Amino acid sequence: MFTIAYLGPEKTNTHLAAQKKFGSRAYYVHAPTVDDVFHFVERSKADYGVVPVENSLEGAVTHTLDRFVDFVQTPVSIHGEIELGIRHALIVHRGAKLTGIAAVFSHPQALAQCRDWLRRHLLDVQWETTSTAEAVQCLLPERKWYPNSRVKISAPPHSRAAIARAELARGKGLRAIPIPDSRENKTRFLILGIGKPRKGRHNKTSILFSTKDRPGALYDALAAFKRERINLTKIESRPSKKKAWEYLFFIDFEGHESEPRVKRTLKALGRSTSLLHILGSYPVKT
Amino acid sequence: MFTIAYLGPEKTNTHLAAQKKFGSRAYYVHAPTVDDVFHFVERSKADYGVVPVENSLEGAVTHTLDRFVDFVQTPVSIHGEIELGIRHALIVHRGAKLTGIAAVFSHPQALAQCRDWLRRHLLDVQWETTSTAEAVQCLLPERKWYPNSRVKISAPPHSRAAIARAELARGKGLRAIPIPDSRENKTRFLILGIGKPRKGRHNKTSILFSTKDRPGALYDALAAFKRERINLTKIESRPSKKKAWEYLFFIDFEGHESEPRVKRTLKALGRSTSLLHILGSYPVKT
Repeated sequence: MFTIAYLGPEKTNTHLAAQKKFGSRAYYVHAPTVDDVFHFVERSKADYGVVPVENSLEGAVTHTLDRFVDFVQTPVSIHGEIELGIRHALIVHRGAKLTGIAAVFSHPQALAQCRDWLRRHLLDVQWETTSTAEAVQCLLPERKWYPNSRVKISAPPHSRAAIARAELARGKGLRAIPIPDSRENKTRFLILGIGKPRKGRHNKTSILFSTKDRPGALYDALAAFKRERINLTKIESRPSKKKAWEYLFFIDFEGHESEPRVKRTLKALGRSTSLLHILGSYPVKT
Repeated sequence: MFTIAYLGPEKTNTHLAAQKKFGSRAYYVHAPTVDDVFHFVERSKADYGVVPVENSLEGAVTHTLDRFVDFVQTPVSIHGEIELGIRHALIVHRGAKLTGIAAVFSHPQALAQCRDWLRRHLLDVQWETTSTAEAVQCLLPERKWYPNSRVKISAPPHSRAAIARAELARGKGLRAIPIPDSRENKTRFLILGIGKPRKGRHNKTSILFSTKDRPGALYDALAAFKRERINLTKIESRPSKKKAWEYLFFIDFEGHESEPRVKRTLKALGRSTSLLHILGSYPVKT
């Protein structure tokens, strides 16, 4: 039985993503930060870790990318990815009316994504929590304190609402009102592990590199991919943190590092970059 | 006298950046969100707007980039940029001891940047505010409520601290303790305006484009720059928000749109991209 560390708390989207992949026959431990998930895997306290890496509306989860930059020597590599559709609901107490809602709790991204709906239907009284699962906790009558218990929640329990997945309303005397959104809202999660995952039928490789500081450096780096007709699925820049306005690049591309065309590409890339790390070659669904 | 709208509240870094550029002979209005700054300029209620766009440790300010994506037809263009060094200090009451601090208030980015220092010197009791200026407000004895007055601050005033620029401690019976950081911490701000700014001696152009969905599309787009030996100073990808895992690119490069080599580049780029917007050509210091 595998032990899976995920960015918690329990029942949050990352937990669901981990369960989607590893099912009910795994032992799940929640870690409070992305850094802690990496630690669990690095110290062999978990076989795999699951962290969010990107949302289709909000973009990259920079904490996750920066962990690879800050600890470039980590033994952790990417073993796979999980995609999860995000659907928000307003969770309220059964019998509560929208007009009686005095405070809405949720993760900042969820609040941002529901901003228009909230403006139309509710007062603009929002409280940010560290996760949507925690936001639902804030509705419970015994929860009198704002997350980590230093600030008092003044709104009575029945006037509190949370934005979270509808499933989180179950078994607590709560009701979920779907919040419609026409945009495609998905989050992509990474599976972290030690060593190398088994090669799949279709594979993806993730790398991290920095270009030499001269005109056309990024272009030259991409030339290697073009030459081998390798499709990039993603490019993301992050600050180097060493010098202002100097960047590192994360690239995801189709193919496995053991394929000759990928080997040739990485070799060429090594010549035109000043740092190159392969974060993982892993199977993907197509 | 110019009217300058900036992302507020008063005395926050964006305000200081605006003052650095426009000095004391301008009339400053603070706007609560990035979107509101754009609105001020779009409706001619301000001559210029100032918003943060990038920090050298944290990366892009996605709100600002996404405003250009969400309202691609805005008449607002970039008229210039301002760079400001960020130095954090712990602001406490005069006579207060570090051991007596029960709560630290600041903007989430400032808290993140001082995380190691806070772990070494203080309890891990942190409260996020919408700005560093607001964090300092939380120290005042009359401030009994957490930002926007729904949740009570239980820590007594003398046990509260804020992370902000040292200047914000002035004239309030407060003391600033510098928080050392060896990393280069700078924020870059955009000056927003209507029409086109005067061409400077050295100029930069910012564009937004989407590539056609085929292998090598980004490479082909960059080829135009390489051919004309134009140096890219920045590339940033953002979700298209139309389809999951489809991206738009923001590129900053050296040169003015009126220069022949830039004209040729933009013309070539128009052929290899499905959307191309020039966000502005503006003078920069070198």
